[in-house]
Amino acid sequence: MRDFSNDHLWLSINTATVRMQRGQPWGLAQILDACAARGIRAVSPWRDQVAAAGLAATARQLRALGLELSGYCRGGMFTHAGGTAGAAMRDDNRRALDEACELGAPCLVLVVGGLPGALAGKPVHKNLAGARAQVAEGIAWLLDEARARRMPLAIEPLHPMYAADRACINSLEQALDLCDALDPAGGGALGVAVDLYHVWWDPKLAAQIARAGRERLLAFHVCDWLVPTRDLLNDRGMMGDGVIDIRAARALVEAAGYGGYSEAEIFSALDWWQRDGGEVLDTCIERHRRCV
Amino acid sequence: MRDFSNDHLWLSINTATVRMQRGQPWGLAQILDACAARGIRAVSPWRDQVAAAGLAATARQLRALGLELSGYCRGGMFTHAGGTAGAAMRDDNRRALDEACELGAPCLVLVVGGLPGALAGKPVHKNLAGARAQVAEGIAWLLDEARARRMPLAIEPLHPMYAADRACINSLEQALDLCDALDPAGGGALGVAVDLYHVWWDPKLAAQIARAGRERLLAFHVCDWLVPTRDLLNDRGMMGDGVIDIRAARALVEAAGYGGYSEAEIFSALDWWQRDGGEVLDTCIERHRRCV
Repeated sequence: MRDFSNDHLWLSINTATVRMQRGQPWGLAQILDACAARGIRAVSPWRDQVAAAGLAATARQLRALGLELSGYCRGGMFTHAGGTAGAAMRDDNRRALDEACELGAPCLVLVVGGLPGALAGKPVHKNLAGARAQVAEGIAWLLDEARARRMPLAIEPLHPMYAADRACINSLEQALDLCDALDPAGGGALGVAVDLYHVWWDPKLAAQIARAGRERLLAFHVCDWLVPTRDLLNDRGMMGDGVIDIRAARALVEAAGYGGYSEAEIFSALDWWQRDGGEVLDTCIERHRRCV
Repeated sequence: MRDFSNDHLWLSINTATVRMQRGQPWGLAQILDACAARGIRAVSPWRDQVAAAGLAATARQLRALGLELSGYCRGGMFTHAGGTAGAAMRDDNRRALDEACELGAPCLVLVVGGLPGALAGKPVHKNLAGARAQVAEGIAWLLDEARARRMPLAIEPLHPMYAADRACINSLEQALDLCDALDPAGGGALGVAVDLYHVWWDPKLAAQIARAGRERLLAFHVCDWLVPTRDLLNDRGMMGDGVIDIRAARALVEAAGYGGYSEAEIFSALDWWQRDGGEVLDTCIERHRRCV
């Protein structure tokens, strides 16, 4: 297992972590500069941030700063109510792939979608199995597009509390079953993003990480689970402030062959988004060394 | 599958559903009277409500009203930090069993506990696997006590969002694995309480309900998952107001042999606890007929 205690060579910052400082969005250019200034070597930006900063400008800035990506957030949202929504979903995912390529991402992270309409508070049906079938179809389609661009797809299982509105892939086992069904030969085109916030509770976590192995483990995200958790979406904890045994989990992914970045992704409306962005990044570095 | 549309013979009311009307606790005696007056045949009371009303008085009232129990809430909370806490846990669970016997409950429902101290916001460690081992030990011990009293134990898997602080048994598969390990011969002494709020998201739900079968299916709880969900604990929905396909799930448990009550258990600080208790019960009856 790699020793992270003396440096932060393997820390990546998911840019959502410092996107809403005191309710005032930090622009992506500012985030990239602040990361590079601290010797952080990698980031994982969100598409809306890239769109606001400009795709070409972001690619240029990343190269100029020597920053690489640990992933690109995100494609997916495959579930839809039919009609023209399917075509719009496909167009959007193609654009996500093209952007990931231009930015040199190692993978496009997929948040697959929940029940159609649920994210807007208006679910159009209650057929979760049907939504899951639509997700499988969507990933099968996108995988061809992704292979043509040599861009790996990382399915991110989301915590079961997001099954209705954000992602109906809710365990590592379910994600890996889908990988095996759609990409039986393996080889790296399709895998998973292991975000501990979503999977830390899973009694099958160790077994499924071992099953995933090096080829399917495309990304590793960390933050912490707070007790109590005051909000379902935006009350994630800084590494070390909650109950997740992060180091034990990193030992599992490393034993399975993962040797990439540990990406800090902290949605925290009540705490970290209320602080200075530099303080947040400095804390991520310190906690990466001590708790990851 | 039974037809519930014309009556409410198989509706049970978990008494937490009407326990905090407008912040003013309804006493258990009042709840039992209100249920009986509406032709509701069963309830599932909580231990603190029984303690406040008096155990013997509650048993007498139940008999006088002809009300039966669909379960007794609850035993468990097996995880502890050692010292005298283990003995206190055992004493408390013995008392829960004795109360369940006196009230004529068909089973004692077990909420098994999370990380020691986490419910009070002070987790004493992060060893979830260790907590799970402590739970297995605790149930193994309690099962002997329960067999001696002929009182079945129903392990209730809780939603993964409660893994840290309330219960580290988080899927039906995990609960059934434990049943099979501790009670390999079956026969009804140990089984599960299937609460749809906790398990509706599970991609293995149908398979695990089928696996459970009649002997392990000791209780069936319903409410609904709202989108958005505004609170992790007390924002459950009335049946029909959320995204759970309750009738499809009831079809699964009935196909597996379950023929007992459908217990409405709705923790709703923001909505149903703000209404008149009679309105809540009337709505449960109407939704039981239409949505369960």
